[in-house]
Amino acid sequence: MAEEAKQGPPQFIPKLKGKKVIIRLVSGGQPVTGTIEGYNPYEILLQTAKGKLLVFKHAIATIGQVDEPMKGFTI
Amino acid sequence: MAEEAKQGPPQFIPKLKGKKVIIRLVSGGQPVTGTIEGYNPYEILLQTAKGKLLVFKHAIATIGQVDEPMKGFTI
Amino acid sequence: MAEEAKQGPPQFIPKLKGKKVIIRLVSGGQPVTGTIEGYNPYEILLQTAKGKLLVFKHAIATIGQVDEPMKGFTI
Amino acid sequence: MAEEAKQGPPQFIPKLKGKKVIIRLVSGGQPVTGTIEGYNPYEILLQTAKGKLLVFKHAIATIGQVDEPMKGFTI
Amino acid sequence: MAEEAKQGPPQFIPKLKGKKVIIRLVSGGQPVTGTIEGYNPYEILLQTAKGKLLVFKHAIATIGQVDEPMKGFTI
Amino acid sequence: MAEEAKQGPPQFIPKLKGKKVIIRLVSGGQPVTGTIEGYNPYEILLQTAKGKLLVFKHAIATIGQVDEPMKGFTI
Repeated sequence: MAEEAKQGPPQFIPKLKGKKVIIRLVSGGQPVTGTIEGYNPYEILLQTAKGKLLVFKHAIATIGQVDEPMKGFTI
Repeated sequence: MAEEAKQGPPQFIPKLKGKKVIIRLVSGGQPVTGTIEGYNPYEILLQTAKGKLLVFKHAIATIGQVDEPMKGFTI
Repeated sequence: MAEEAKQGPPQFIPKLKGKKVIIRLVSGGQPVTGTIEGYNPYEILLQTAKGKLLVFKHAIATIGQVDEPMKGFTI
Repeated sequence: MAEEAKQGPPQFIPKLKGKKVIIRLVSGGQPVTGTIEGYNPYEILLQTAKGKLLVFKHAIATIGQVDEPMKGFTI
Repeated sequence: MAEEAKQGPPQFIPKLKGKKVIIRLVSGGQPVTGTIEGYNPYEILLQTAKGKLLVFKHAIATIGQVDEPMKGFTI
Repeated sequence: MAEEAKQGPPQFIPKLKGKKVIIRLVSGGQPVTGTIEGYNPYEILLQTAKGKLLVFKHAIATIGQVDEPMKGFTI
């Protein structure tokens, strides 16, 4: 508890670095799949089958894990 | 009243932690259903039937409770 | 006038608390109807016929009053 | 020029207060027509033929004047 | 170089003041064409064939120059 | 490691300056292709086949590299 107070709100995206994810965009259409290589407050860098892709967070609706859907995001 | 003034504006999402919710996205399409496991100022972590799902708040239109629609969000 | 300067810009949503409203979302589709029970800088809590519904302000296009359309929002 | 520097960037919405406008929303669909009765940093209050309507600025694409399209927004 | 550091990031919209532009909106649909008469951090005032039009920046996807597409935005 | 801490979060867009990119917009539709000539916190200036184009970041869903998809965004 004391530790929680110290940590501030949970950060979910850092836990997904290096994981394969499926990203659904607010624009709908085909989701984007790839491995999260990096991130900053505004963007996520994804390694996809077709190369690196910079995804703006403001365009993301949801992120789910591909390989081990039940083990992701432990909090 | 004095207590309200001290508390600042009501916070609704913390009251939904651990509750089963239905989330409609601004992109329309199928709503997302799951249990809220965590949240921070930008994202909500949802446990769905298919695993964990990170939902960006900016992509959410509405959140309703599934199991006890009349009892949720007491303020 | 002096009073206006002191008050800052007009706040419209507080005047709608307890009122029945129709909310149109930026995503289009069916508008949402209910009574505003609470609000904070980011969300509005609505009592609808199907239970409470948390509506994110960023997803709202317009809010109109249902019962007394000509009397609402007096400024 | 010195005056401009002192005034900061031009404010367009205050000049439209009391004017009849046509507002197109980012969601597309039918534009909204009415007279601007008030505004704050986030919302515009419109008197429409069907009553008052609160329009969120984030949902607005464009605002044009209805009655005197060539005379509006003098800067 | 030293000058760049002093200037901060490049500002593109001021260079378009008085130029005829074509603005595509995030909502899709017909682009808007006109001359940029003014701007502030949130809005752009456009002189179109049908009168003045206030365009919210948050609703803009892209701005291109109409008359001299190769000469615009020199940086 | 110490260097990372000093640098703050990774910046991806500066690494794309001068590179040919394909930009998908949140509005869907045809992607925009061009070379990034400049950027600031809100906009990206693109040299396209039809001239310069100012693209608002808030309207961008993803940016990918065109010519050397596997070599872009080294972090």
